[in-house]
This record gives sequence, C-alpha cells and structure tokens, in this order.
Amino acid sequence: MAGATTTESNVTAPTRFLDANGERYAYRRFGGGPGFPLLFLQHFTGTLDNWDPAVTDPLAVTHEVILFDNAGIGRSSGEVPKTIAGMAKHAFAFLDGLGVRACDVLGYSLGGMVALQMAQDRPSTFRRMILVGTAPRGGEDIMHLEKPSLARHFQDPTLRGYAILRKIFFAPTESSQAAGGAFVGRLTQRQVDLDRPSGPEVAANQIAAFREWERFTGERFADLRSIRHRTLVVNGVHDEMIPVANSYRLVENLPDALLLVYPDAGHGSLFQFHESFVGQAAAFLASGQADGEPG
Amino acid sequence: MAGATTTESNVTAPTRFLDANGERYAYRRFGGGPGFPLLFLQHFTGTLDNWDPAVTDPLAVTHEVILFDNAGIGRSSGEVPKTIAGMAKHAFAFLDGLGVRACDVLGYSLGGMVALQMAQDRPSTFRRMILVGTAPRGGEDIMHLEKPSLARHFQDPTLRGYAILRKIFFAPTESSQAAGGAFVGRLTQRQVDLDRPSGPEVAANQIAAFREWERFTGERFADLRSIRHRTLVVNGVHDEMIPVANSYRLVENLPDALLLVYPDAGHGSLFQFHESFVGQAAAFLASGQADGEPG
Repeated sequence: MAGATTTESNVTAPTRFLDANGERYAYRRFGGGPGFPLLFLQHFTGTLDNWDPAVTDPLAVTHEVILFDNAGIGRSSGEVPKTIAGMAKHAFAFLDGLGVRACDVLGYSLGGMVALQMAQDRPSTFRRMILVGTAPRGGEDIMHLEKPSLARHFQDPTLRGYAILRKIFFAPTESSQAAGGAFVGRLTQRQVDLDRPSGPEVAANQIAAFREWERFTGERFADLRSIRHRTLVVNGVHDEMIPVANSYRLVENLPDALLLVYPDAGHGSLFQFHESFVGQAAAFLASGQADGEPG
Repeated sequence: MAGATTTESNVTAPTRFLDANGERYAYRRFGGGPGFPLLFLQHFTGTLDNWDPAVTDPLAVTHEVILFDNAGIGRSSGEVPKTIAGMAKHAFAFLDGLGVRACDVLGYSLGGMVALQMAQDRPSTFRRMILVGTAPRGGEDIMHLEKPSLARHFQDPTLRGYAILRKIFFAPTESSQAAGGAFVGRLTQRQVDLDRPSGPEVAANQIAAFREWERFTGERFADLRSIRHRTLVVNGVHDEMIPVANSYRLVENLPDALLLVYPDAGHGSLFQFHESFVGQAAAFLASGQADGEPG
C-alpha cells in the first residue's frame, strides 16, 4: 500500500513528520495488506511509544497501521486541545495532509472519544470503528484520577512511570498484573527515536477535555444513534479508569455495535488479551459489509 | 466418539430415549470430534425441535452434540419442575444415565439458569460453559410475558406458533425479523419424529421456576463468584425476554466470563447471527485452558 515501509513493527518503525494545518504532526506508518488503513488514536498522555507492538504489529499484516501524536503530544507541535472536538480537528488535518480519505479506526480510551467525535463530524472518514475502554459523551466516571482506587497509585512513592501504568491499566490480580509486566516489557523494546513523555500540562488539558465530554444536553446518548458505522466495542470488566458501564451505553445506543468484554482485565484489556483482541479485531475488520454478520 | 451416529444434523438425527431416575428422557446425539461432548439446555417451552440446525450442526463437526428434553418436555416423562434446581436434578440424572462424566454446556435462556445451578451443585460436570440470553439468580425482569412489550404478541390474534416466536425472539427491525423468518424456516425443515409442542402446563411450571429464580438471599450475585468455569456469555442488546443487563451482571460477578453482545438482536441472537455465534463458540471451546487467553 502507498506509503507503507518494509518496517513492520512499532519497535522499529521510524517516526515521520507531516506539516499540515500550521502544525507539524509526528506519526508512524507501517505494514499493509488488503484491508483499509487503520488509524490508531491514543489514550490519556500516551505517545507513539505507548502502542503495544503485540497489538499494532499483527494488525499491520493485513492493514497499513497509522499511529499519530495529536497536537502537543510527543513530538507534534501545538497546544493540547481542552476539548475532544479540538483533538478531532487535528486528527482530520493530519489525515487530510496524509491524503487518507477513508480508513478504519482503533480509538482507545481518550482516542475512542476522538473517534466518536470524528464519526459524527465527518462520517465518511471511517469505514469501521473499534472503540476500546472508552465512553460516549455524557458517560460516567470518566478518568477521575482523584478517586481513591486510582489516586493511591499516583500517590505511592514506590511507583514511577510504567510501574504506575501497570497498576492503573491492569486488574489487581496476579494474572492481570503479570500481563501488565509483559506489556511494559514490550513497550520498552523500542530504544531509539523515542517521543518525549507527556508532562503535567498535557495531562491537565486532556483532563479538561474529559470533564467537557462528561457534559451533555438534551437526551443522554441520543447523539450516538446517528453513528451508523459498524463498530466493535471492547472493555475490561474491571476498568477503573473508564468503567465498563460506558461500553454498555455505547452498544445500547449505537445502531450497529458488537460488544466484547474481557474478564480479569482493567483499562488495558487489549494489551492483556492481545492475541484474542487482535484475532477479534482482524475478523471484525475483515468481515463482509453486506452479509448481515457482525465480525 | 462413543454413541455418535453418522447423522450429523438436528434436521435428521433420530430421537432416542434413556431410562434413568425413574423417568424416560428423550434426547438426540450426533456429530463428534476432538472436543468434549456439548450438552444443549433448552429455552422456555422449547423442545428438541426448537434447536436451530444452523447452530447445532456446525458445532457437531468438532463436538458430539447432545440435545435433551428435561422432565415433562416433548417426549420425556415426568412433571416439569417448578424450580431451576429441580430441572438441574433431571439433567444430572440424564447425564449420569448416559455415562457422560464431563462435558461442555450451551445453556440458552432457561437452560442457562439450569447450567448455572448445575455448575454450583457439581462443578466437575462442566469443562466450559456458554450462557446465552440468560440470567443469574436474583436477575431482573426475567421472562415477564405479561409486560406490554411481550404481551402484545401473545394477544395478537393474527399470530400463532412460530409467528409469535419470531416476534419475541427477534428485534422489531426489518433485518432482525428477516433473520427470524430464516430461523423459523430452518426449524420447519424437520418433518418427522417430532416432539409434542409444550402446552400451558409446561409454561406455567417454567414461569414458576423463573419467579423462584428471581429471588435471592444475602448479597446479590455473590453465589456467582464460586463458579470458576471459563464461560462465554452472549446476549442480544435488545432482548425483551431476559434483558441484557442480566448478562452484564453475569460477567461482572463470574470470575472468568467473556461477554459478547450482538447489535440489532433480541433473545434469539445466537440464531440471528448463527455464523458469528458458531465461530465464537467453537473458538471459545477450542482455546487452550492454560494460555491465559479467553477464546
């Protein structure tokens, strides 16, 4: 596929830069195959380096994978928007600058909200959507890092960086924490050409965007009914960051959304059960559009 | 596999009879393969003839399929129990009489409740469980046929038999009703060796069992935490007979349950999306037990 390189892993794919919309966006693209390009939209404070190669790389066998730093993240220029709508505008500018007119999307957490906003703003951009650990506008208990179940990890002086991520992305069971350790190990495989980690100013603006996204006017969730895209919604049953009830509301109100909920998993269900997730995602993206069968 | 015949379809498999526990149980078994035998436990008023060959037959390629009429249903002798526990006792007597010591189970609706009861009473009976359109003890809004959304179909003088089933098992959309028509067409392929349809006395006793199953003592759903079986929970998002919230409660409280919710589907999601369902069920049953990956 045009633009794909022979580098097929997020461990080694070079970071590229696109000038568009008065900004410079950092991105990576690799892989290819019969599927539509697959745009990955990232979680709270995450950069290009936070995408698990166990998820990106197998999907790159059948899809060109496109990872992207929104404005103000990693090595992308600009200010981190304080609204999801602002982030959606940057994502459109990036896709337009790249010349990608239609793609599939995997929106994770914050990225899922951006995907939902984009699907409403310009439906033709996406063929199918995969929404993991995310919430609709008007969702409940979205990323309240101040609540005790999360704050205790941020306030624990023995935890730093990825050790915190392991606590907050995975369930407090031995099996889930082991999966979290393996996840962190995969992320640290990439050693060069790294993004700058997000600082407190990124977090503050993204938290402001979550607070704005929790607000709604009119009938709650009614806006979802106009999103006709075939969608796969995925969540861990013990997600403390964006509780699974938000995924329930998504599939109850989106017209064509299949729900998959993993046991023994928190916010990082897709990384914990990466083999199952990649299989489900690939089958969902590959399934026929006219056969009446969810993937 | 022992007892499997060369007849591999519920359209043509002969009905057999087993004398055990002072009763005569009607059953069918067909297919075979590397998997454990797969016991099917049937829905409210359903007989052997209500199992969709589009679901049973593909699963019979890798599993011996065992369909069974509980006491008082179809051509099985005895009284229909007024409790789920009573139905579980008959299912144990049937399996014991058949010499099946361990199997997988697909419990649908009422049958899912019987499977849950059996898993608690004698955990070693089941390797894995598939629970479709069902509810835990203490679940909500279980089979309230008197509520307007369901009663209107029973009271519609233009509807009889399978036409009612199509209305109550499928969502009120063109696509779901079309799938319902196809489902009814598949059921009517079997023309001989048929069960006697269930009458009002069957319905009355099974409704009594639903009412008893809605009751709980102590902490709601706490009983689920002792059921360690790897479980696949499936529901249609628009199920009016046993609402999807019951499946949410199952996966939130069962220690190892994966949830799959189909869009545009009611109680009969497994029949509407039979290709997807069979693929998911077969993968779930085939997946390794020690690899930490849900199916």
